[in-house]
Amino acid sequence: MTGQERSEEKSECVSLSPMREAVPTPSKCERVCVFGTGDLGRSLGLRLLQAGYGVVFGSRRPHSSSFLPHGAQVLGHAAAAQSAHLIFIAVQREHYDFLVPLANQLKGKVLVDLSNNQRKNQYPEANAEYLQSLVTGAEVVKGFNTLSAWSLQNGPSDANRQVYICGESVEAKQAVIAVATKLGLSALDRGFLSVARELEDFPLQLFPQWRLPLRIAIGLSAAFFFYLLIRDIIYAYVTQGKDISFRIMVSLANKVCPIVSLIMLSLCYLPGVLASFLQLYRGTKYRRFPDWLDRWMLCRKQLGLLALGFAFLHVLYTLIIPIRYYVRFKSTERTVSVIRENRTSEFDTMTAWRSDSYLSLGILGFGLYVLLGITSLPSVSNALSWREFSFVQSKLGHLTLLLCTAHTYLYGWNRFLSSSTYKWYTPPGYMLCLVLPSVVLLLKLLLITPCVDRTITRIRQGWERGADQRNPKDSHPLIP
Amino acid sequence: MTGQERSEEKSECVSLSPMREAVPTPSKCERVCVFGTGDLGRSLGLRLLQAGYGVVFGSRRPHSSSFLPHGAQVLGHAAAAQSAHLIFIAVQREHYDFLVPLANQLKGKVLVDLSNNQRKNQYPEANAEYLQSLVTGAEVVKGFNTLSAWSLQNGPSDANRQVYICGESVEAKQAVIAVATKLGLSALDRGFLSVARELEDFPLQLFPQWRLPLRIAIGLSAAFFFYLLIRDIIYAYVTQGKDISFRIMVSLANKVCPIVSLIMLSLCYLPGVLASFLQLYRGTKYRRFPDWLDRWMLCRKQLGLLALGFAFLHVLYTLIIPIRYYVRFKSTERTVSVIRENRTSEFDTMTAWRSDSYLSLGILGFGLYVLLGITSLPSVSNALSWREFSFVQSKLGHLTLLLCTAHTYLYGWNRFLSSSTYKWYTPPGYMLCLVLPSVVLLLKLLLITPCVDRTITRIRQGWERGADQRNPKDSHPLIP
Amino acid sequence: MTGQERSEEKSECVSLSPMREAVPTPSKCERVCVFGTGDLGRSLGLRLLQAGYGVVFGSRRPHSSSFLPHGAQVLGHAAAAQSAHLIFIAVQREHYDFLVPLANQLKGKVLVDLSNNQRKNQYPEANAEYLQSLVTGAEVVKGFNTLSAWSLQNGPSDANRQVYICGESVEAKQAVIAVATKLGLSALDRGFLSVARELEDFPLQLFPQWRLPLRIAIGLSAAFFFYLLIRDIIYAYVTQGKDISFRIMVSLANKVCPIVSLIMLSLCYLPGVLASFLQLYRGTKYRRFPDWLDRWMLCRKQLGLLALGFAFLHVLYTLIIPIRYYVRFKSTERTVSVIRENRTSEFDTMTAWRSDSYLSLGILGFGLYVLLGITSLPSVSNALSWREFSFVQSKLGHLTLLLCTAHTYLYGWNRFLSSSTYKWYTPPGYMLCLVLPSVVLLLKLLLITPCVDRTITRIRQGWERGADQRNPKDSHPLIP
Repeated sequence: MTGQERSEEKSECVSLSPMREAVPTPSKCERVCVFGTGDLGRSLGLRLLQAGYGVVFGSRRPHSSSFLPHGAQVLGHAAAAQSAHLIFIAVQREHYDFLVPLANQLKGKVLVDLSNNQRKNQYPEANAEYLQSLVTGAEVVKGFNTLSAWSLQNGPSDANRQVYICGESVEAKQAVIAVATKLGLSALDRGFLSVARELEDFPLQLFPQWRLPLRIAIGLSAAFFFYLLIRDIIYAYVTQGKDISFRIMVSLANKVCPIVSLIMLSLCYLPGVLASFLQLYRGTKYRRFPDWLDRWMLCRKQLGLLALGFAFLHVLYTLIIPIRYYVRFKSTERTVSVIRENRTSEFDTMTAWRSDSYLSLGILGFGLYVLLGITSLPSVSNALSWREFSFVQSKLGHLTLLLCTAHTYLYGWNRFLSSSTYKWYTPPGYMLCLVLPSVVLLLKLLLITPCVDRTITRIRQGWERGADQRNPKDSHPLIP
Repeated sequence: MTGQERSEEKSECVSLSPMREAVPTPSKCERVCVFGTGDLGRSLGLRLLQAGYGVVFGSRRPHSSSFLPHGAQVLGHAAAAQSAHLIFIAVQREHYDFLVPLANQLKGKVLVDLSNNQRKNQYPEANAEYLQSLVTGAEVVKGFNTLSAWSLQNGPSDANRQVYICGESVEAKQAVIAVATKLGLSALDRGFLSVARELEDFPLQLFPQWRLPLRIAIGLSAAFFFYLLIRDIIYAYVTQGKDISFRIMVSLANKVCPIVSLIMLSLCYLPGVLASFLQLYRGTKYRRFPDWLDRWMLCRKQLGLLALGFAFLHVLYTLIIPIRYYVRFKSTERTVSVIRENRTSEFDTMTAWRSDSYLSLGILGFGLYVLLGITSLPSVSNALSWREFSFVQSKLGHLTLLLCTAHTYLYGWNRFLSSSTYKWYTPPGYMLCLVLPSVVLLLKLLLITPCVDRTITRIRQGWERGADQRNPKDSHPLIP
Repeated sequence: MTGQERSEEKSECVSLSPMREAVPTPSKCERVCVFGTGDLGRSLGLRLLQAGYGVVFGSRRPHSSSFLPHGAQVLGHAAAAQSAHLIFIAVQREHYDFLVPLANQLKGKVLVDLSNNQRKNQYPEANAEYLQSLVTGAEVVKGFNTLSAWSLQNGPSDANRQVYICGESVEAKQAVIAVATKLGLSALDRGFLSVARELEDFPLQLFPQWRLPLRIAIGLSAAFFFYLLIRDIIYAYVTQGKDISFRIMVSLANKVCPIVSLIMLSLCYLPGVLASFLQLYRGTKYRRFPDWLDRWMLCRKQLGLLALGFAFLHVLYTLIIPIRYYVRFKSTERTVSVIRENRTSEFDTMTAWRSDSYLSLGILGFGLYVLLGITSLPSVSNALSWREFSFVQSKLGHLTLLLCTAHTYLYGWNRFLSSSTYKWYTPPGYMLCLVLPSVVLLLKLLLITPCVDRTITRIRQGWERGADQRNPKDSHPLIP
């Protein structure tokens, strides 16, 4: 990431925040100290003042620090450190060495390391661990680093209310948790200081759960794009010498999108089906799934949402068909040829049924698709009970897959049998993309047959094959 | 629900959770006990460890329990029970009897019943009440049962942060609330143990607020489907012998969808209008509405969202019209007949106006419809002040109804007068569906006339007809 | 707003709430007092009971008060006031004078002023300040006024969990914060009582951040509507005497929508670019932006969402093109004229390329547009890390602008050069709307050239031009 976006965000920090006029509650309250008078230090100081703390900024030149929130005190580092038990270090790691001479004043104090790095693995050890090694007499707690100056100034919204902390000393961590609670944050203790690195990497990550699904989507798109390019455009050029390259922009895109969408939707439901068969085979639910299955399960939501994105593009590409120059040209040409050759065409009820069913199934499938997408929104899925969520995502999800698969079969119709479909002995794209969803639906059908379903339900309630003679009390856990 | 979905959800429990590497903060912390080493017990134990508690698992075979979170202790049930004041019972109800012999060790302890059932009314009394009857010396608190093992492992997200508890002892409940708070949950005391049944039913419910609206939607769809089937398809077959059954898939669907959508949208605004007239008639707002009106009011959001769903399908069905085989065939046929019969058709500006206005009103109406849907998302409506929410849902809502009704009137246009419209003396579907929205809009118009509006506003500010001589202080409450 | 909506909301208060059956936890708990037995008073009382408080209602006629929650006590005002330390005043400001004779009983008590007004500036001073002036011996705390009776009854959802309080006494405020916390609310101290007015205005505000963007949208729409009306419809009428006024409904709307959408999208990205250049020019990030730029930055989200709304309408208006009577008429006419005049038209591959590319870019641009809109939903943007959010909103945002601008250029194509385009010497609308996005994209291009980008990144990391000799420790803050 360039620094570009950073400033756009940052630039909001200086601006009219809703808390601006807040007057700090004065005196006789607990004091905390903030080292560093940059954006983050000042924002944190303001928020602490608003929460009723006395705030002392530590600065090398206490008399020339400007922009500090009204109500805060500014002292030299040593004096500031002595004035409070809890010291927030809002300074960049490169400047931590200024703390070494303060070792005496920092002895026994709780230092909260707020720092982040600019990229992963920038330094050999975590900033917080480095800080602890510099000031061995103090108790370092890593935390709050997921908050931006901006979110501190504007008050926490729902999701970023959660902050993570870690450190060696339980007392130090509890002191920090107390401050977090007063600031309206909810701090979660993640353990010892060795976790600091993980916490420092957190704000640097860019959609880690989306990487694998995105790679699959891009890979599939590229593969099918080239496959269809050869079959449709290069084939026409080679065998008939026609240049229909303009079809890349819409026709080809409108073939790649639905193909990738359907494959990704079935990839979203395949791991659940596989997991069921694995449990059935093992006869127990108390063994971990293999790692690849675990990882696959965890990215089902992302797979599904990407599938929805491709379906959305497919809908748009389909709806603009009649506006295209090529389509309008062909339509006029067809009518003209009917007249000139004095042909009469017969209305075919079967074709009308097929065409309308095909469209109707697609519409209903897309409607359900969108419904699944909406229930994936955090605020919606949180409002659902667990049973409701699983009803939508599993029952309606498989119904969506069924509708979209049927839509594709109707698109193919009887062309499956015609040999002219197989240019250069290759099947068309929609046939290839039908394989996976058909397999998933077949397996799912097997799983919901009464006898299989009964066994699987028992396994999920804690029953283990060949384990009935063992103590049932501990091994039969609660179905959550 | 089959066990199918359950396992798909469950299978995530075993997988890579973000909390996995968390190291528990050790020693000298408060100890809690967990009975049951299933998914839920283990997940709860891990979370308790992360929150800084010492965790003791109670197991019948303490030496052979596996998969338990690192840092937890495993003891026999009796020893485990003695080690802590608070004991979480993460065991299925069927196995509660193992607790009877432990009566001595459990005396005075707080037992948190986490259990759920698999269907409503599975047992004569609530699990928590049954537990209390088995272990009379302990204080049973029902709670946490809305949490799944999965949400415990992954940390609570916004909405499921709220858990409900109930029990007889205030002290026991306060101890449980303290633990909940440390786990980042917000526990709400719902009262005595008699509420336990309600809490146990909660995770089993499947969209209770959606049932009535869904039934209305399905009923209306079925009624109009058969009505239009007779009028359109059977009529054509009987009177002209034509088989136009293929129209079921798209044409008929595209008539049923907008009709049901418009009726449901007006059903969404009718109760508010009725309530206003009731207050106007009674001259006070301090009397409860009849139960049916109350219940109707409470499902307005669901009625509106279903109406949006049908409108969405209507839009898709309309947009694919020009792609349909039937439409393309007819279009060619029409052009051909113009040529062959050497007709000239005149461009009719009035028809162009009507057609374009009809489409434009529909588009604007749908745009507002979508806006209403977006503001219904929990995270969006929560961000609105109460005045903003009611502006959107009431002002914009009635405007949407007005636009959609006008859209339908323009669709009908002058066909209202033509006798050929009334096949078999029945009015077409769009006429039937106009009745309700027209009534709602007329009543609403009456309500916003200045004189009626003034009275209604006074009533809502606490004024009561014929009550002015009474003490005004208590009867005029704050307008929130 | 009329009182209409108010009652519709209010009417829900009396109805089946999920908390209805909750039984209050009795006795020996802390007591609080509520003055006022209206909707808000009763709802607050019920919630306090559920949270475990003893509740005493103060009423002038304690024996005739009805509808009060089960478990609450009702006393006369004086007796009620004496029974508790904390008194919630859920009475309208007009009736505050009944508190004057209670001065003795209220001495030293904490009075929580919950009141709101019906419009801004209704009274010369804030209600809470007026209350304090009436009962000088008590400690008035303003707060909770953003809660409606409805949200109190139904339990707080995510966002309205945050309440604001203000007052002179720290102790009084801490007592109120403690109650708020027990009610599951998170109270934020906003300072002294002088802030009360601001808190009282809050529930009255109607989309304050949307005003400026909405005005811009309406202004632009009106300006372009009249511009295009003159160029398209009046021009045709004046020069050719043709009445094509029906085009207003769809054709004109479908020109205004994309034009306004593109301009507003570039207005959304222009301030960020300007801010970067300003930082570059100043050589520091430590100087505030001018006020107009600050205000502009703060409404970027609203500008973007309005732009999305217009783009959505543009898509719908475009997709219904082939259904329009006018378009179908013209299409038939064209085919007929081809036959009658025995013309043959040649298929133009270049036109097909241009038409398809134009549509494809539009579809991709709209897809990204929708993605940006979805990530603007509070629950989605909260789930993103700060880096992810800025990646989506900045990187993908500028890509969206690029795609939409290219879409518009392709629409114009070579008509830029044709003189017939410039009716009455005015450029067509799409040319005018290309100016701003082109400028934004050019400036952005400049900013991401390596040398400029390097300087800007350094500035954002705290570097100041000509400041290297100064103390680097305090001036180099943490990059949050």
